[in-house]
Amino acid sequence: MTEITDTTPTWLSADELDSARARLPLVYIDAIPVRVDERGQVISIGLLLRGRPDGSISRAVVSGRVHYGERVRDAILRHIEKDLGPMALPQIPPQPAPFTVAEYFPDPEVTGFHDPRQHAVSLVFLVPVTGDCAPNQDALDLVWLTPQEAVTEQVRAEMTGGQDRLVRLALAHAGQLP
Amino acid sequence: MTEITDTTPTWLSADELDSARARLPLVYIDAIPVRVDERGQVISIGLLLRGRPDGSISRAVVSGRVHYGERVRDAILRHIEKDLGPMALPQIPPQPAPFTVAEYFPDPEVTGFHDPRQHAVSLVFLVPVTGDCAPNQDALDLVWLTPQEAVTEQVRAEMTGGQDRLVRLALAHAGQLP
Amino acid sequence: MTEITDTTPTWLSADELDSARARLPLVYIDAIPVRVDERGQVISIGLLLRGRPDGSISRAVVSGRVHYGERVRDAILRHIEKDLGPMALPQIPPQPAPFTVAEYFPDPEVTGFHDPRQHAVSLVFLVPVTGDCAPNQDALDLVWLTPQEAVTEQVRAEMTGGQDRLVRLALAHAGQLP
Amino acid sequence: MTEITDTTPTWLSADELDSARARLPLVYIDAIPVRVDERGQVISIGLLLRGRPDGSISRAVVSGRVHYGERVRDAILRHIEKDLGPMALPQIPPQPAPFTVAEYFPDPEVTGFHDPRQHAVSLVFLVPVTGDCAPNQDALDLVWLTPQEAVTEQVRAEMTGGQDRLVRLALAHAGQLP
Repeated sequence: MTEITDTTPTWLSADELDSARARLPLVYIDAIPVRVDERGQVISIGLLLRGRPDGSISRAVVSGRVHYGERVRDAILRHIEKDLGPMALPQIPPQPAPFTVAEYFPDPEVTGFHDPRQHAVSLVFLVPVTGDCAPNQDALDLVWLTPQEAVTEQVRAEMTGGQDRLVRLALAHAGQLP
Repeated sequence: MTEITDTTPTWLSADELDSARARLPLVYIDAIPVRVDERGQVISIGLLLRGRPDGSISRAVVSGRVHYGERVRDAILRHIEKDLGPMALPQIPPQPAPFTVAEYFPDPEVTGFHDPRQHAVSLVFLVPVTGDCAPNQDALDLVWLTPQEAVTEQVRAEMTGGQDRLVRLALAHAGQLP
Repeated sequence: MTEITDTTPTWLSADELDSARARLPLVYIDAIPVRVDERGQVISIGLLLRGRPDGSISRAVVSGRVHYGERVRDAILRHIEKDLGPMALPQIPPQPAPFTVAEYFPDPEVTGFHDPRQHAVSLVFLVPVTGDCAPNQDALDLVWLTPQEAVTEQVRAEMTGGQDRLVRLALAHAGQLP
Repeated sequence: MTEITDTTPTWLSADELDSARARLPLVYIDAIPVRVDERGQVISIGLLLRGRPDGSISRAVVSGRVHYGERVRDAILRHIEKDLGPMALPQIPPQPAPFTVAEYFPDPEVTGFHDPRQHAVSLVFLVPVTGDCAPNQDALDLVWLTPQEAVTEQVRAEMTGGQDRLVRLALAHAGQLP
């Protein structure tokens, strides 16, 4: 999209990424896929079942790194396509501001958002999807839960690293926290 | 939609509305229709040409009162359908919070948002529309302008009562103020 | 504050207000008083104990009507002074946008925000206070609770009409929902 | 502040930082210092005069990198102290969400936010300051401008790299864009 991506190495080797992870906070996005009715009200929230950085297989939202030279908008679109398939038809928000920022630390006590691999600063967006979602690549499963279902103790217990709290923050932002 | 609307008088006679307008701030919504690209970036903004409360015929965004017993979401949808037609396919934002609040006063000096008829507190939303827009009812015309076009002196001169400022606030929120 | 307030009747008689309440949504503000540390993080939230529209004596945040001719900012300041006393030293947010909108209906089923007297559209703000708070007028008591305390079942049971949900939405906005 | 910062190298050598800058987007904050009146309305905006990454000496807001292991809140506080001195008494916003995100690229065409050294994703906050501001370290000067003054052609001409647009986005967010 820019000259940058044409002329410089934007992807890192595994070693280089490991080294950077020990030195710099990384830029991430979290995208919470939701179904909305015709007046925009959130009626369900999509949760993936996948392997997580902490070694667990647990429920999580769409998430990933922003590449060098990549717009945040393009990173959201890329990760949604990667996790939900090419037919998800996401409505990326028009505003660049995330509704919250999740700061992931190797130390789970700092913010409650935990990533054993790295310090990541994640811009979190609510993303309505209107098409067919087919979890691909690493995800084992995708479920759509109502706001009431998404905050039950049972579903919360299936999430780690603060993902359950991220879901509640998203529902609160949408005015749909039960 | 609710029992309230079935059992109580939700619309006021012209006289009653005039009386209320002299005593209470009214609840309004402003909806700024935009076209976005696949990654959510605003590429153009829709402006109606219509008769305005101040007697002028000038450019304006979608706007109107919230009825008794009506959800804000439903008011946005109703006014967009009224002004842009039933095929506009608006994407009402999932969050209930407006991106700004415009306080209209009979005195143009208070906030710069001016309505000679009343004190109105307006919740302002950016609303991507994806369908065909056909201005109906009171609107004479609808134009789609790029962010650059929408802030030119010429277009600003076609707006009154603070509508030009509302357009700039919306573009700023979208990160697209030139 | 403006010519309007000098020359027109801005306050309504009890009868007139009753009549308006049956016909028009009223403009309200809710202000959630919080204590923050030097880096802005919310450490406690203030809850009043007071008589409520539903006849209960229960926990609630600062709340009240916006008068005709009054800026939303001035209404927030007035209600905080009324409920927390003149020495509360509130930091009214610089942005006019509320973090959420609570739509109160006589029917408790519509949104979960319930006011038996009226339909009110309330702009909700988080307001750090740095001074001495002395609940006056109608409030019986003021307590400061940590985010953890504010969401316990016991405290939630002391709130009615959706006030407990408003507290959780505020904590979520602050990134401090447990 | 956390175990992380005690046990790992959080600051990079100049060479390492140069290398990272060519490979990864960096996490930055921009803080726009403002003076507000007692009801929170922005009355002036603070602009530093300083050497900029592009080699110019021009007007700019408070800005800087988020360190490894550092909370975003702590980075805001640190950079404000560095640029405005220890007596500025900033009111860091209680919410973690920035009001906008500025994406700086070496290519000035991508977003209009330009940094010849790197790709930086900057979380932008409006920060009321109530104390005495004394520009120190690299800043040559600090001026306080009204919203009207801050958007004049003359002041805009004193800013580079998109800083003038950042100022307008901040004023728009505060509802004070002229």
